[in-house]
Amino acid sequence: MADHVYKKIEIVGSSPDSVEKAIENGIARAAKTIKNMRWFEVSEIRGQIDDQKIGHYQVGMKIGFTIVDKD
Amino acid sequence: MADHVYKKIEIVGSSPDSVEKAIENGIARAAKTIKNMRWFEVSEIRGQIDDQKIGHYQVGMKIGFTIVDKD
Amino acid sequence: MADHVYKKIEIVGSSPDSVEKAIENGIARAAKTIKNMRWFEVSEIRGQIDDQKIGHYQVGMKIGFTIVDKD
Amino acid sequence: MADHVYKKIEIVGSSPDSVEKAIENGIARAAKTIKNMRWFEVSEIRGQIDDQKIGHYQVGMKIGFTIVDKD
Amino acid sequence: MADHVYKKIEIVGSSPDSVEKAIENGIARAAKTIKNMRWFEVSEIRGQIDDQKIGHYQVGMKIGFTIVDKD
Amino acid sequence: MADHVYKKIEIVGSSPDSVEKAIENGIARAAKTIKNMRWFEVSEIRGQIDDQKIGHYQVGMKIGFTIVDKD
Amino acid sequence: MADHVYKKIEIVGSSPDSVEKAIENGIARAAKTIKNMRWFEVSEIRGQIDDQKIGHYQVGMKIGFTIVDKD
Amino acid sequence: MADHVYKKIEIVGSSPDSVEKAIENGIARAAKTIKNMRWFEVSEIRGQIDDQKIGHYQVGMKIGFTIVDKD
Amino acid sequence: MADHVYKKIEIVGSSPDSVEKAIENGIARAAKTIKNMRWFEVSEIRGQIDDQKIGHYQVGMKIGFTIVDKD
Amino acid sequence: MADHVYKKIEIVGSSPDSVEKAIENGIARAAKTIKNMRWFEVSEIRGQIDDQKIGHYQVGMKIGFTIVDKD
Amino acid sequence: MADHVYKKIEIVGSSPDSVEKAIENGIARAAKTIKNMRWFEVSEIRGQIDDQKIGHYQVGMKIGFTIVDKD
Amino acid sequence: MADHVYKKIEIVGSSPDSVEKAIENGIARAAKTIKNMRWFEVSEIRGQIDDQKIGHYQVGMKIGFTIVDKD
Repeated sequence: MADHVYKKIEIVGSSPDSVEKAIENGIARAAKTIKNMRWFEVSEIRGQIDDQKIGHYQVGMKIGFTIVDKD
Repeated sequence: MADHVYKKIEIVGSSPDSVEKAIENGIARAAKTIKNMRWFEVSEIRGQIDDQKIGHYQVGMKIGFTIVDKD
Repeated sequence: MADHVYKKIEIVGSSPDSVEKAIENGIARAAKTIKNMRWFEVSEIRGQIDDQKIGHYQVGMKIGFTIVDKD
Repeated sequence: MADHVYKKIEIVGSSPDSVEKAIENGIARAAKTIKNMRWFEVSEIRGQIDDQKIGHYQVGMKIGFTIVDKD
Repeated sequence: MADHVYKKIEIVGSSPDSVEKAIENGIARAAKTIKNMRWFEVSEIRGQIDDQKIGHYQVGMKIGFTIVDKD
Repeated sequence: MADHVYKKIEIVGSSPDSVEKAIENGIARAAKTIKNMRWFEVSEIRGQIDDQKIGHYQVGMKIGFTIVDKD
Repeated sequence: MADHVYKKIEIVGSSPDSVEKAIENGIARAAKTIKNMRWFEVSEIRGQIDDQKIGHYQVGMKIGFTIVDKD
Repeated sequence: MADHVYKKIEIVGSSPDSVEKAIENGIARAAKTIKNMRWFEVSEIRGQIDDQKIGHYQVGMKIGFTIVDKD
Repeated sequence: MADHVYKKIEIVGSSPDSVEKAIENGIARAAKTIKNMRWFEVSEIRGQIDDQKIGHYQVGMKIGFTIVDKD
Repeated sequence: MADHVYKKIEIVGSSPDSVEKAIENGIARAAKTIKNMRWFEVSEIRGQIDDQKIGHYQVGMKIGFTIVDKD
Repeated sequence: MADHVYKKIEIVGSSPDSVEKAIENGIARAAKTIKNMRWFEVSEIRGQIDDQKIGHYQVGMKIGFTIVDKD
Repeated sequence: MADHVYKKIEIVGSSPDSVEKAIENGIARAAKTIKNMRWFEVSEIRGQIDDQKIGHYQVGMKIGFTIVDKD
């Protein structure tokens, strides 16, 4: 376990509802093609303003996952 | 559209409830004097502690808006 | 009041629910041993992914408190 | 002169042509409402991609100007 | 009070005498047009050298103030 | 649209001519394997010096693209 | 001496007079409970504004001290 | 050669032995699926503590490689 | 486990031999007074030069540990 | 070659024309006294504004060169 | 004047009295070997603690000077 | 001693063996022309990859030395 190698990818999830929901959406989408996800690190919180109100949150994050034989 | 010029201002919104509500309060207040707001970027999340509990969240953010003829 | 001295400690709170709840948990735990807490500053938002979903949020924060005679 | 006070504002200029043209566009627009501009500092270079090519450059910059009596 | 919204502006104060005097000069000038100033944050300390000596200090700072009805 | 998820990759484009041409070369190469590119963010500008002159510019950038069903 | 271990704590000193006096106040207070202090590193200079003037300086600093047997 | 385009990926290598061994493990694993690797940049050094001792080092790094026809 | 709260302290370990040995020395010393240490993050690598050679390495690091009932 | 030692110096080149020309001017001047220059890294892009237009660009950069016997 | 090239060097000045005096000492010493100094930028403020009090301030700064024919 | 002035230079040492050996090589080379070296600060750890393995480490560092009469 001490010799594990992890890869980190960077994605941006978005949601009209909350920071947490944007993270959740990003991870859910990443889960379709990446396995063995282990952690995430938020790198940026921003968002779109529509009609003078928050349109949606955009949360940049890095996702770390274990590299296994079939990556 | 490619030649648009935007201005960014920096505000701090606060709320006893959540990070999102603090952002929302900040944008709502900015909307009273600024038009054509396009996006926001969170630069700082902090807060006041009252009686050993979170008193309110303070979220620093930059707001970008399109400069139009009457600014 | 202008000559007050504050100390800052750094903790990481966690919660399966939200960023706010992780902050709240961290402050609640700190409140058991630290008095006169005045403010917090979020320094890091990250989290664990379990079974391809958010397991829990981990929020790093600094907590500032007034140093009084018995610290 | 040693007691001058300057103000800095932050804008984003854009141009389909180059980084320099984006800066130039930003300063030209700012010149309509701000006088006594003295310097600029580039804080961010980014851009839009349209049809798999650079659509336009977006250059964030701070502009410093001398505050005089009628600002 | 928890729902206050603050705005931050960025200025550069200067003085031939000291860092503190440069901050003071900057705030004094800002006080002519901004009300309800609450805090400042130093972002940069630099200066001009004239005749191989310090000509004057230039201190960049952000000033936070409460946004009230007539801003 | 508010629930879009984007991925960011990091590349370095180079050119003997200019910063803009280096960005353009990088995006042109990325376009061969990535679809739906939306924006780029310059993270680093550097270059090689050959024979005491600029040999070529190397511009590091992140490219954001929409994740669609077949990525 | 080469195997010494140091600990760093973070405090905020304040003073209505100057940056130096705020540092001095912070160190004087820390000296009541910490021994063997060796160095300090300023991490933040800010302050309170009262009645449109500097109320007091707040200087954040880290203090390094040698860990000895009874800490 | 001046028009080369490079891609950078981010991995975390680990080892119970040393920082260098963690880097080596990370590069060895990356070598299984990436060709034409040219350089690495260490972005983070951290590690796990087990039984009050260093369990293993974890070294985050970016790896740059030349993009060639079949990537 | 998801509600754990961690504390981070900052120390500087030193060694005439290597970066790893300086980290090890720091953690060994911390282990005398802190229990349940979980991870470390290197924040700074520097050192003393004696007689024109490396005298000893000084490695700044943060150590995270679980806060349990008796801390 | 693996044991080469490089030195980095920091200069600011300027030009009324473009960022690239400012870099070029800086390197051309450095070439008069420094040999074996290998690379440059842009650290800052700013400029002077004269008569409400860009007067000249000022580009800060570090230049790396191989240290050889006669430096 | 728009094509001037500047060099920046980095020094640390110290003084038992104040931050300003440490800067002044550093510039005075640099003036013995460098001509045409134009500006300074403070990069670090720290100091030594002796006998539980400030021993002296150490202020890191970059000094920019015009490169002229005989440098 | 409190009025000492130090200069910092920036070099990059390299070695096929380890981070420590790269630092050592850099300092050994600097020792040929610089006297009174006091400390070093690592600013960057990177390296070359040859044949899919670490070719050599490149460690950027700043070296501080006391300025004495004949520098």
